[in-house]
Amino acid sequence: MLKSIPDLRQVGRDQNPRGSIVQVGNAAIGGRRIVVMAGPCSVESADQLLAAARAVKEAGALVLRAGAYKPRTSPYSFRGLKEEGLRILAEVRNQTGLPAVTEAMDTRHLEAVCAHADMIQIGSRNMQNYTLLEEVGRLRIPVLLKRGLSATIEEFLFAAEYVASGGNTQIVLCERGIRTFETSTRNTLDLGAVPVLKKWSHLPVIVDPSHATGIWWMVPLLARAAVAVGADGLLIEVHADPEKALSDGDQSLRPDKFAAMMSDLRQVALAVGREI
Amino acid sequence: MLKSIPDLRQVGRDQNPRGSIVQVGNAAIGGRRIVVMAGPCSVESADQLLAAARAVKEAGALVLRAGAYKPRTSPYSFRGLKEEGLRILAEVRNQTGLPAVTEAMDTRHLEAVCAHADMIQIGSRNMQNYTLLEEVGRLRIPVLLKRGLSATIEEFLFAAEYVASGGNTQIVLCERGIRTFETSTRNTLDLGAVPVLKKWSHLPVIVDPSHATGIWWMVPLLARAAVAVGADGLLIEVHADPEKALSDGDQSLRPDKFAAMMSDLRQVALAVGREI
Amino acid sequence: MLKSIPDLRQVGRDQNPRGSIVQVGNAAIGGRRIVVMAGPCSVESADQLLAAARAVKEAGALVLRAGAYKPRTSPYSFRGLKEEGLRILAEVRNQTGLPAVTEAMDTRHLEAVCAHADMIQIGSRNMQNYTLLEEVGRLRIPVLLKRGLSATIEEFLFAAEYVASGGNTQIVLCERGIRTFETSTRNTLDLGAVPVLKKWSHLPVIVDPSHATGIWWMVPLLARAAVAVGADGLLIEVHADPEKALSDGDQSLRPDKFAAMMSDLRQVALAVGREI
Amino acid sequence: MLKSIPDLRQVGRDQNPRGSIVQVGNAAIGGRRIVVMAGPCSVESADQLLAAARAVKEAGALVLRAGAYKPRTSPYSFRGLKEEGLRILAEVRNQTGLPAVTEAMDTRHLEAVCAHADMIQIGSRNMQNYTLLEEVGRLRIPVLLKRGLSATIEEFLFAAEYVASGGNTQIVLCERGIRTFETSTRNTLDLGAVPVLKKWSHLPVIVDPSHATGIWWMVPLLARAAVAVGADGLLIEVHADPEKALSDGDQSLRPDKFAAMMSDLRQVALAVGREI
Repeated sequence: MLKSIPDLRQVGRDQNPRGSIVQVGNAAIGGRRIVVMAGPCSVESADQLLAAARAVKEAGALVLRAGAYKPRTSPYSFRGLKEEGLRILAEVRNQTGLPAVTEAMDTRHLEAVCAHADMIQIGSRNMQNYTLLEEVGRLRIPVLLKRGLSATIEEFLFAAEYVASGGNTQIVLCERGIRTFETSTRNTLDLGAVPVLKKWSHLPVIVDPSHATGIWWMVPLLARAAVAVGADGLLIEVHADPEKALSDGDQSLRPDKFAAMMSDLRQVALAVGREI
Repeated sequence: MLKSIPDLRQVGRDQNPRGSIVQVGNAAIGGRRIVVMAGPCSVESADQLLAAARAVKEAGALVLRAGAYKPRTSPYSFRGLKEEGLRILAEVRNQTGLPAVTEAMDTRHLEAVCAHADMIQIGSRNMQNYTLLEEVGRLRIPVLLKRGLSATIEEFLFAAEYVASGGNTQIVLCERGIRTFETSTRNTLDLGAVPVLKKWSHLPVIVDPSHATGIWWMVPLLARAAVAVGADGLLIEVHADPEKALSDGDQSLRPDKFAAMMSDLRQVALAVGREI
Repeated sequence: MLKSIPDLRQVGRDQNPRGSIVQVGNAAIGGRRIVVMAGPCSVESADQLLAAARAVKEAGALVLRAGAYKPRTSPYSFRGLKEEGLRILAEVRNQTGLPAVTEAMDTRHLEAVCAHADMIQIGSRNMQNYTLLEEVGRLRIPVLLKRGLSATIEEFLFAAEYVASGGNTQIVLCERGIRTFETSTRNTLDLGAVPVLKKWSHLPVIVDPSHATGIWWMVPLLARAAVAVGADGLLIEVHADPEKALSDGDQSLRPDKFAAMMSDLRQVALAVGREI
Repeated sequence: MLKSIPDLRQVGRDQNPRGSIVQVGNAAIGGRRIVVMAGPCSVESADQLLAAARAVKEAGALVLRAGAYKPRTSPYSFRGLKEEGLRILAEVRNQTGLPAVTEAMDTRHLEAVCAHADMIQIGSRNMQNYTLLEEVGRLRIPVLLKRGLSATIEEFLFAAEYVASGGNTQIVLCERGIRTFETSTRNTLDLGAVPVLKKWSHLPVIVDPSHATGIWWMVPLLARAAVAVGADGLLIEVHADPEKALSDGDQSLRPDKFAAMMSDLRQVALAVGREI
């Protein structure tokens, strides 16, 4: 009923039947504790990032997320502060003690990202950027690999295999919504992918309800569902002033809503034998 | 960020901002209690149905589901016991006290279904069978309306409007997975549809993880997610001997797995302020 | 590379390797001549239909199409003149000598449609309305079966098998666009379906570029492509005054554009060894 | 009926209402003559490529296509001869006089590709690899930009805008099939995209029926349809011995089938006022 996938030589479940744990700073992703990674879509300024980082840390997030290089559909949109953004990210990481995850869009970004962050994110649009995957495979830094917009679960796992076959098996998979005919939400969150990924692979799996829905008030509800279905973590966009955000304001939670969500999620986590 | 839908004259949220409750026998769908409807895909025999009905009742299901008319892709597949199936269903309903829901595929089935069941199901393939919807709108029996395989949420609500505009507003909406490019599961469960439906409409919303996944061991996990996201109920396939089922055996839970799932769901329901 | 479909007992290619011809009035669908069926989306009045019928006949259409029962997403849209529409259709058919095709949405429409038209259309939304398919299978009138919005080719052929297994094998298949993520056109015309359908089945295949695109100026271009790929016919919406049409005005051609398209298509048909 | 796209500052139709012509060697893409680019999926050896190049040139192809860097779903599949492949490609280009197009998958490939080929291909998986697009925008070499598997037409044009905003407007767009629920063909060729792209943009548009279908015998039929719908060119996989091809053998035409297709296409091109 669930066909098997041959040739997953590194990331297949049978390589580590009990499941892997990926360590990012103090956060162990894949264990009993559900790891919440939160922060703004983009680094906009040191003040903005620090405010968001302090708020999410206080509410229980274990990893800070923020983009310095931003893939945007139009070349005329805000595309991130780039190297300056990385510097701010590293600074805020040092001030708060939160490990940081940020996206690299090109092989030439890797060195700078490694120098300023604790985990490299490969975004949806680059899930099949194989030269990038191969280079990341040669590094020894944890990788957050997001599912492509229309990638099958099998293709997603083979993208992870590209990284792992280079020797870097510290990979966390992220379901973030797929492209379907439905237009009321930004994408369609495929929560069924979580148990399928865990059946086929030993890698931890997290869920990004912010990009999946594109609508801030839906985020806490789908975060609850993600915890209930067995996700090992969440990736959540938080901004102190979403209406002024330079990207993705519609899907960002204010700090108070984020804190309320975290307290809500604690109950659901307990109900399924986990904690946050 | 969520466009509004004009012209929902009966089922729009503003017609009943607090949300509707649909009563099926003793089960009030849309209230604090999450209503589980369970039973086999098809009525196969009186013994088979009675065994399943007793098991699901004992585990806490409030409504019995079983098909007498079965829509099947191939005309050469088992297509249900038809009138004989309805008679068995009514008998088991009387023996167990569980109200029953079953599918009508054609306007000519309605009279018999009304005579033997407590709720009419309109299946996914008939979500836009408008003459059937109109006829059901003239009846005064609760309706379980399943989302079409590739129906947008807007089309789904307009299908409900067809029923309601005839005067029958006892409608329960059911998200049961949509058709996407992903093939590892039978369909892709769109849990984001639950909050969107509740935002746009006052009707109760339930979720069918059995058809959405097509894989029995995934059902309890997605049922948990459905409860967490705010569904008012669940539709679950249960069969005492799935390997011998005449239809949908792969996605049917054995009674013991169903009971374990129910006990699991009770915890999740409590965590989100509901009960089962 | 193209998996085979078992169990097509009536409509499989091996039942008639040379391909079937379906006769509708004087039009032989499936032969060397490409059969164009044209007319307005809906019967609106005798004058409107007669004007359209004369125009399309003069330009070379062999079958008149017009809807009396109209499936519409909202119950509050214009839904056709129903029986009155059928009477007008029969009248115009008699005046022009063009055989007529029109949609039946329910088993209870069949008698009236048979009495007033020469071919029954089963619309996309009813492609899996199996009781309707079965009833049509008992009749001896040609059937135009449209592919469901998200039906696989395999499901489409099994829908034809439902009709054929009842004894009525006078079936014409119609590709009319499928639902995808792309929103610039109404649907995505799947022209690859034409050769696949012809490989797997002996039934004639026509294409409806009007519903596929939803945009009138694209219709002649995709009609050319349909002829080039090997379609046996076309279904085209034509209205004398599209801006006043009660349904589908955006995708309807004016008579002069239709005539220009027909003359264009003649060249393409000759280039691929067919005629119009 | 066709919404407009704002902010296409370089590739929008209004920047060049009569349409652009992109020159690749002697081939002018976007003029009256339809330009066929053909060759094997991958460079496998000098002999293999030379045989294919001679065959396609003799049959009327104007550009040679062959991959040296091959994006493959699994890291364990054949991934191209890389630099060695580029050297062979340049050699065969010189021997036959055919200009060559080949894929670059990473910014670090660009220099070598520019040194050995006449046109850079950006593959589907990299359509939103924005750093690659930006680098290509700084070059002065023609670009063949393939539509992403699930890219909307709007996103596709913004990808072209990324290249053009850097100053390189020698861009040819390629429709190559999109990902849908249909599984009988590899992808679903979206021929409606051709007129939409031409309405919104002044760039030439070609079609790749080999990747769209994945099935060699369907290629000539969909190539005919592409010419009929108004494509400015075709991208066709040809291999002297498809059963021994290291990649994409199922969708490659033998030289004799390719020659027969070309002669066929000449008729269709004439019928629509073009030539090949």
